[in-house]
Amino acid sequence: MAMKFELTREIVDNLKEAVNNNDETAVFEQIKDLHSADIAELYGGLTLDEAKYVYLLLDSEMAADVLKELEEDNRERFLEALPGEIIAKQFIDKMDSDDAADILGDLSEEKKEEILQNIDDVDQAGEIVDLLGYDEDTAGGLMAKELVKVNENLDVETCIHEIRKQASEVDEVYYVYVVDNNDILKGTISLKRLMLARSNAKVKNIYKPDIISVNTDADSEDVAIIMEKYDIVALPVVDTIGRLMGRITIDDVVDVIKEEAEKDYQMISGITEDVEPSDNVFVLTRARIPWLFIGLIGGILGANVIGIFELEILKDPKLVIFLPLIAAMAGNVGVQSSSIVVQGLANKTIDFDSTWKKLMKEFSIAFIIGITFSILILTYNLLFTHSIQLTLTVSTALFTVILFASIFGTFIPLILNRFKIDPAVATGPFITTMNDILGMFIYLGLSRVLYGLFA
Amino acid sequence: MAMKFELTREIVDNLKEAVNNNDETAVFEQIKDLHSADIAELYGGLTLDEAKYVYLLLDSEMAADVLKELEEDNRERFLEALPGEIIAKQFIDKMDSDDAADILGDLSEEKKEEILQNIDDVDQAGEIVDLLGYDEDTAGGLMAKELVKVNENLDVETCIHEIRKQASEVDEVYYVYVVDNNDILKGTISLKRLMLARSNAKVKNIYKPDIISVNTDADSEDVAIIMEKYDIVALPVVDTIGRLMGRITIDDVVDVIKEEAEKDYQMISGITEDVEPSDNVFVLTRARIPWLFIGLIGGILGANVIGIFELEILKDPKLVIFLPLIAAMAGNVGVQSSSIVVQGLANKTIDFDSTWKKLMKEFSIAFIIGITFSILILTYNLLFTHSIQLTLTVSTALFTVILFASIFGTFIPLILNRFKIDPAVATGPFITTMNDILGMFIYLGLSRVLYGLFA
Repeated sequence: MAMKFELTREIVDNLKEAVNNNDETAVFEQIKDLHSADIAELYGGLTLDEAKYVYLLLDSEMAADVLKELEEDNRERFLEALPGEIIAKQFIDKMDSDDAADILGDLSEEKKEEILQNIDDVDQAGEIVDLLGYDEDTAGGLMAKELVKVNENLDVETCIHEIRKQASEVDEVYYVYVVDNNDILKGTISLKRLMLARSNAKVKNIYKPDIISVNTDADSEDVAIIMEKYDIVALPVVDTIGRLMGRITIDDVVDVIKEEAEKDYQMISGITEDVEPSDNVFVLTRARIPWLFIGLIGGILGANVIGIFELEILKDPKLVIFLPLIAAMAGNVGVQSSSIVVQGLANKTIDFDSTWKKLMKEFSIAFIIGITFSILILTYNLLFTHSIQLTLTVSTALFTVILFASIFGTFIPLILNRFKIDPAVATGPFITTMNDILGMFIYLGLSRVLYGLFA
Repeated sequence: MAMKFELTREIVDNLKEAVNNNDETAVFEQIKDLHSADIAELYGGLTLDEAKYVYLLLDSEMAADVLKELEEDNRERFLEALPGEIIAKQFIDKMDSDDAADILGDLSEEKKEEILQNIDDVDQAGEIVDLLGYDEDTAGGLMAKELVKVNENLDVETCIHEIRKQASEVDEVYYVYVVDNNDILKGTISLKRLMLARSNAKVKNIYKPDIISVNTDADSEDVAIIMEKYDIVALPVVDTIGRLMGRITIDDVVDVIKEEAEKDYQMISGITEDVEPSDNVFVLTRARIPWLFIGLIGGILGANVIGIFELEILKDPKLVIFLPLIAAMAGNVGVQSSSIVVQGLANKTIDFDSTWKKLMKEFSIAFIIGITFSILILTYNLLFTHSIQLTLTVSTALFTVILFASIFGTFIPLILNRFKIDPAVATGPFITTMNDILGMFIYLGLSRVLYGLFA
């Protein structure tokens, strides 16, 4: 029984050594019991030449599986180096249509054509071309064409024959779909149900008619939410008139869920691309520069705001001491508010409150937080700062800033969402920087007023 | 064919009206075709009394399903209000052992006992008690006892009979597990394989022996990673000597994946609890105060750092203008570095680089970013600031600060991880605030040196 495989540097080093000694037997010994996903992972530790050497020792079924599991950039390098005929006949032939379409979708137009022309099975080539026509981020882009379907007019026995015939083409049969003569999806029938039914029963009378399906152009995020909410393992995809076009399996949706979560995480951490610590310096740098640049522009704007209040600062240089505190609190409060909204929108949690009620709620929270921290900093300043003007300014400003940053943080993602812009933008450095600047403006502006009053 | 249901405020209002008119027929009409997950969602818009009214109109199968889908706090309120006997006989009886254990696990000890004593099926009660013994965050805590298993010594025909008998207890049969006489897991056999095999073939000769399984005490995050990596829909769980104890299905793991992603997201956004915009003011406030408090302490420390350099600021008050810019850049760069590491660790991406290589890589990235922004701010200051000392101080400080924040941001999560502390802590306000302070210290410290040199 193969248990979980743990990849260590030792394993990689041993493999590298065997490859460099040109010892085919030793290499084969080390990889023969591994899962395709493990072999794909091993490649991360090999040079392109070493990886190719290992790859050529795999049988073509395994080679196709490894290809699916490889990281995109590694895969592209591999495929661009191989002739289209070999790719078509040895790898694509062994794959489900959705995996084949995903892999082909990443390649250059020429390479794609070259491969498609070399696929022997015209049906498969047609399915791949169909799938390539859908946008990646839709149900059509996620679905596979391989599925098992039976006509509602069959009896159980014929149905089982039919399933046996179709099943040899499909990796995992979760559901058998039931269609009418026009290929319109009517429902499902489980293998369990078929096994329990009398052999002369009609499919029509025993299938489950209540079935959740999505249209080919449904957004992939919505697909994920539906499958998760209703605990669906394989979701049928239909066209506008209800004809069965394909099915989406939960493993593809797990990827969508992870990608969505990672996208939001990147946004809040100020990174513009999906990067891994193992990516190269160029990729990692490129992912980080844009948001930092926006942060820099914000910083320069902030510098100008401070410049406006030069007179106030000259009057009491101690004002400066609390400037970063106010700016940081504004930023933190704003990010908290935005991220709660962003997560709520991502989970499509239904919120029954009206905008007015939302406003009142956020206002209450901000009020409590504002009062709390305002009193804390007041206490600190009463103890350690001997200026009544400064003490009052800092406390009043902190309260005001928390109120503004909360309200902004809550409503900006809601507004972005209404205009179909990814609300997660509101968690990135853009809004944080805005909140910083707003915080400084309020603080120094208040100092002008309060120092005037208590002069 | 039931398509996706879209919950609107109108639907909720109509339902509320029917409930308040005590119009059972109208209420029933509105909910009869809904999925349990939709009814559970509807409850978010109802008062406890309205929800109870609706709940009592459901048949007990549906009531059990709705109960599973309810949010934890809503569910607890419901259950605490109902007698244990009804819960046991009407709801728990209809559930899989893992769902029952999850629900019971959230209740008070007394309530739990009361319910367990009222379960008629001793086997089921025993299974639930077994499951309650596992830590929530382990494979044991995730698994269900319901599964279909056959002895390896059976022939296909007996095996199909056996499966029919067992299958009526199990919702979805993904795999049939094959065990030996000691209940040790040997492999799987798919329904497809059974349907395609001759009826006198022995299970022993046709089952698939390569099977990935986990131990009951495996960490739930590891379970998620394994199921995702190997695209497993149902993962068998075994005890220390390899006996089959249960199975984990992919839908439970989708929840683990989402929770993990949400935990990291909360950490980076400075929130200490899993909150939704629809939670009440108290819960939302409580989730936000702790990290803000840490931010405040950091702000006060920062204020003291600035205080140390009062003399420098008095000499050139313009120094202050760029203070927030330097602090913010330090914070942003630090969060970027940390979050890349945190995501890498969460994905368990294997990194073949040595610590030294990692250091050199992060140093290279920081160097490029540092030089870029240092030159940008130098250009700005050469154009708009007429102090050579200030211009040099700002550029040099920005470069240095970016370097430090990057290295800190990369290594702190790695160190936390080594000490088994959640590395995501390094993305929270604690480290951001540290970076802010470090940034100000470097900036003002450098100003002391450089103003001295160019005096």
